[in-house]
Amino acid sequence: MSLSTPTNNIKKFVIAMLVSVAIQRSVNVLAFQSKAHVRRALLSGMSQHVERSPFLCPMKRWMSTENATEKTEEELAAIKAEREARKAEKERLKAEKKAKKEAERLALEQAEEIQDVTYLFYEKQDQYEPFGDLSRTMSRSRTGREFVNVQDLEGEGSKYGPGDTVWLRGRLHSIRVKGGSCFLVLRQDSFHTVQACFFKDKENPDFSQKMIKYLKSLTEESVVDIEGVLESAEVKSCSVQNVEVKIKRIYSVTKAASILPFLVEDASRSEAEVDASQETDRPFPRLGQELRLDNRWMDLRAPANNAIMRVQSMVCQLFRESLYSQGFIEIHTPKLIAGESESGAGVFTTDYFGQTACLAQSPQLYKQMAISSDLTRVFEIGPVFRAENSHTRRHLCEFTGLDLEMAINDHYMETLEVIHKMFKHIFNGLETRMAKELEIIRQQYQSEPVTFTEEPCVIHWPEAMEILTKEGFDIGDGMGDLTGAMELALGKVVKEIYGTDFFMLDKYPMEVRPFYTMPDPDDPKFSNSYDIFIRGQEICSGAQRCHDPELLEELLAQKGIEAGDGLKSYIQSFRDGVYPHAGAGIGLERVVFLYLGLDNVRKASMFPRDPNRCTP
Amino acid sequence: MSLSTPTNNIKKFVIAMLVSVAIQRSVNVLAFQSKAHVRRALLSGMSQHVERSPFLCPMKRWMSTENATEKTEEELAAIKAEREARKAEKERLKAEKKAKKEAERLALEQAEEIQDVTYLFYEKQDQYEPFGDLSRTMSRSRTGREFVNVQDLEGEGSKYGPGDTVWLRGRLHSIRVKGGSCFLVLRQDSFHTVQACFFKDKENPDFSQKMIKYLKSLTEESVVDIEGVLESAEVKSCSVQNVEVKIKRIYSVTKAASILPFLVEDASRSEAEVDASQETDRPFPRLGQELRLDNRWMDLRAPANNAIMRVQSMVCQLFRESLYSQGFIEIHTPKLIAGESESGAGVFTTDYFGQTACLAQSPQLYKQMAISSDLTRVFEIGPVFRAENSHTRRHLCEFTGLDLEMAINDHYMETLEVIHKMFKHIFNGLETRMAKELEIIRQQYQSEPVTFTEEPCVIHWPEAMEILTKEGFDIGDGMGDLTGAMELALGKVVKEIYGTDFFMLDKYPMEVRPFYTMPDPDDPKFSNSYDIFIRGQEICSGAQRCHDPELLEELLAQKGIEAGDGLKSYIQSFRDGVYPHAGAGIGLERVVFLYLGLDNVRKASMFPRDPNRCTP
Repeated sequence: MSLSTPTNNIKKFVIAMLVSVAIQRSVNVLAFQSKAHVRRALLSGMSQHVERSPFLCPMKRWMSTENATEKTEEELAAIKAEREARKAEKERLKAEKKAKKEAERLALEQAEEIQDVTYLFYEKQDQYEPFGDLSRTMSRSRTGREFVNVQDLEGEGSKYGPGDTVWLRGRLHSIRVKGGSCFLVLRQDSFHTVQACFFKDKENPDFSQKMIKYLKSLTEESVVDIEGVLESAEVKSCSVQNVEVKIKRIYSVTKAASILPFLVEDASRSEAEVDASQETDRPFPRLGQELRLDNRWMDLRAPANNAIMRVQSMVCQLFRESLYSQGFIEIHTPKLIAGESESGAGVFTTDYFGQTACLAQSPQLYKQMAISSDLTRVFEIGPVFRAENSHTRRHLCEFTGLDLEMAINDHYMETLEVIHKMFKHIFNGLETRMAKELEIIRQQYQSEPVTFTEEPCVIHWPEAMEILTKEGFDIGDGMGDLTGAMELALGKVVKEIYGTDFFMLDKYPMEVRPFYTMPDPDDPKFSNSYDIFIRGQEICSGAQRCHDPELLEELLAQKGIEAGDGLKSYIQSFRDGVYPHAGAGIGLERVVFLYLGLDNVRKASMFPRDPNRCTP
Repeated sequence: MSLSTPTNNIKKFVIAMLVSVAIQRSVNVLAFQSKAHVRRALLSGMSQHVERSPFLCPMKRWMSTENATEKTEEELAAIKAEREARKAEKERLKAEKKAKKEAERLALEQAEEIQDVTYLFYEKQDQYEPFGDLSRTMSRSRTGREFVNVQDLEGEGSKYGPGDTVWLRGRLHSIRVKGGSCFLVLRQDSFHTVQACFFKDKENPDFSQKMIKYLKSLTEESVVDIEGVLESAEVKSCSVQNVEVKIKRIYSVTKAASILPFLVEDASRSEAEVDASQETDRPFPRLGQELRLDNRWMDLRAPANNAIMRVQSMVCQLFRESLYSQGFIEIHTPKLIAGESESGAGVFTTDYFGQTACLAQSPQLYKQMAISSDLTRVFEIGPVFRAENSHTRRHLCEFTGLDLEMAINDHYMETLEVIHKMFKHIFNGLETRMAKELEIIRQQYQSEPVTFTEEPCVIHWPEAMEILTKEGFDIGDGMGDLTGAMELALGKVVKEIYGTDFFMLDKYPMEVRPFYTMPDPDDPKFSNSYDIFIRGQEICSGAQRCHDPELLEELLAQKGIEAGDGLKSYIQSFRDGVYPHAGAGIGLERVVFLYLGLDNVRKASMFPRDPNRCTP
């Protein structure tokens, strides 16, 4: 069956028909190219495939047609002649093009480079080869095909079982062809996998050979569609363990390059596994952080890394759920602001129509102005920018802030209670709703769940100083900020004493806190402010805010800050009357990275930003 | 009862006691100042008020005390002498200070300027004047007082009724003192209001006079605490209409300045009301947009404006609810990126450690890379930056983008179905869950609910061109973008034909869409892209994306865009295999402003940013 066998007439007819059909856009036809399909389509009559619009309003004809007006016979004859001439010329050009293409194709085929290209006409799939590359998905038609989720094949309770025929779309995780048999693993959502296989059919050796040739041509990480029959099997290496798919058809949707930056499999191993392999004949490659981040989309296909992003999403969901239930609403404050929101922290600036604007280092001033605006319980989830040249494993130049602010009746402990309730909801929610994801993450990155107390565990500054002194730290006058080492030591001791990984440290010295912090009522060297820790590392910073404009001006003067336009509005909003209030800012990536006991905050950021990295 | 009556000894005792108590921080006492309270406190024995920590871990003593070591008698005597000398000096200074203060107070009192200052010891409130300014809330103690929400007094089903005594905290919305009677309105959350009143007690004229003097000194917008008894009444001007509060006690928590930028009442009127008043003796002031935005915290206290922010919050909540239920997860993509995300739209830039970084004009490239990362259904809510010098009523330089992106099986109509379902959830959710807020908003800004169809209403480009031609627009070759006037006209006609304010316009010309748009499979002059409209104005733009790296490079070349580092990663992520996908970006403020039929998008932004405004 070669393309030279059909007569020219048939070829012309096919071309003309395809052209006319393509012009009428209400009729959606998929063009054919491969010889076998052309032949089969012709034989089957190739009925028009009309796209059924699922929508209310009728789809109009693509181009409007004018009403014909009456013409003389002469005019009609002229029109007809012109039309025929045009048609003949068109057909000549088409034939020429076709011949050229065919010559090219033949040349390619001789070089044995060609692959069978299937331009799939979905409704007529039985007429096509059961393998091939689908044409580029351009929304030409809707197949209505229902793909089964790999996840739904898993476990005892699955509604699919041996003997069922299913369509699956997923990534080709791996492929192994050996002689007459082929095993491949299809992967979905990074951690649902199923084995599919094809065995040479002795009754049909030609077809089997072709299929195996095609399977060999497939590249890992390509997206493929498989139709197959479920068969009982025992597959330990896949998430679907009691069935495999016997391939009936396979088509590639998009093809991945044959050389990838690295293999997902290599990105999925624990450090321990890599370490252990180094003494063997086949040591596993150790993928560096930079290589991973340069190709983050590949890194995120590794089950644990993908699951980390899902956990991150769930943290936000749980944060909001708890705050909604406690009467909060969500706000969105500007990130381009006239002055710094946190003096002391590095700031990015930009030209703003001739002025200089800062990128908000926190929504601090604005969430407080929300309180002045009678939005008395607010939260915001948004980016926070810090132009700090820090090259540590826990700093980012851009991170996601989970911020909240609320009016208080008479004590900021009201806020700590809200926050504690919220974190409990997050921790409990993660362990129950994300059990599968946590299991996968902990396979690659070992950690224990975070322990926490039913009621808030609040340590006060003097107690922390006592602990640190006992631990051998030189705390000086006890009024300086904590170093990372101090925080870790404190976390260790708190865990020993109170049995919790999660605690609050209250009453920081005023000196190390921002100007908007409310001083302690008895000793203005201290303040009504707190940090919150997971495993001895800070995830949250908060305080009662100074809502009194006069005191605020004193505090600004003490810190040597001059009130620019931004701050003037902020203070004015308090002069116009405000509820006493307190709040906190939480680092989303910090929560995720420390909850999961990861070694680097970058692992909890989708596309991390640090002084050396602004791409991808 | 003047401060000179107590003997010096008693004064000294009180001072010494207060000093010692303040030092021991585990004992929380509120300092007294007013004469009457000092007397009463003494009489009542002033027992220690220990703050009961609600927390698990015991609160440590504020300062650690060293263990006393043994001293010689001589040393002890010296220490004692020193101590006594210090004490005497301290007391002398205190007495001096006290005398000075008293002199000042007397001078003020003579000038009739003084107000009674109540430093409230909550547990002993019966001993204090029933009015006064509370000391600055600095979390000295927790009262445990339960404030009742004004909202809970509303309606038939309220659990509070005439005769009940309640504590309320809120803003002093208005106050009217006339002779021996005083009426004030307390406001909470901007739109829950209740009337409170005080009438001169003929049995107790001195007290009544003092109370009325205090009430007169209160300023509107101050935050006050009221204890009062509910009484039956008919109050049409408040949200609580069948009871009012007879004031027993009133304390101010924070005092608003006596001169405010404008009154909340003036900010709360509809244009029609202001118009109608112009011909009367008392025309209402017309507050300009700039004045409002300069004092946005005051503007947002107006019930309608406050409710708009609550609606905005609910739109986000409903957006997420619908997408979670359709299998999406939330992502956070970087806002500092190496290149432009939308060529053509103005971009803000910043110095990024020696490089130039752009502020993301959309999360476009990153949400697509999420698809490459096997996060196949994602959404993001985050800021979007456009350095466009547009001075229109529908453009902002920073707005909140509701973005989504999803893998498709074979047609981007799958995405339009997801989006339509989501918008229906938003519209239905607003009308049911935000009924009260919508009622309030519509009182000030008249509008009808948005009408929409059960199934998506999709108009195609040629139909739109036909409509616009009929409407008298010069559409040229029909391949240019729509002007605002065209969009409005189109919206009008679509409403007439299909009876909906909400529709989708599909198949935009490729020329007017970004490079990453998938061309139409039959005519590359058109594209698989759509805008979504409410009341004839765009709220959303989306498309099937070009997932094919080769075609993408062609499209970039056609648009004359050179691929920088950012774009190179993006294209590479597709080379490494990707699902065909489509998505959309929605402007949150646009949705709110158009859903509510407001005249300006700034009304739907908490702190709007335009070329002239970067503060507050």
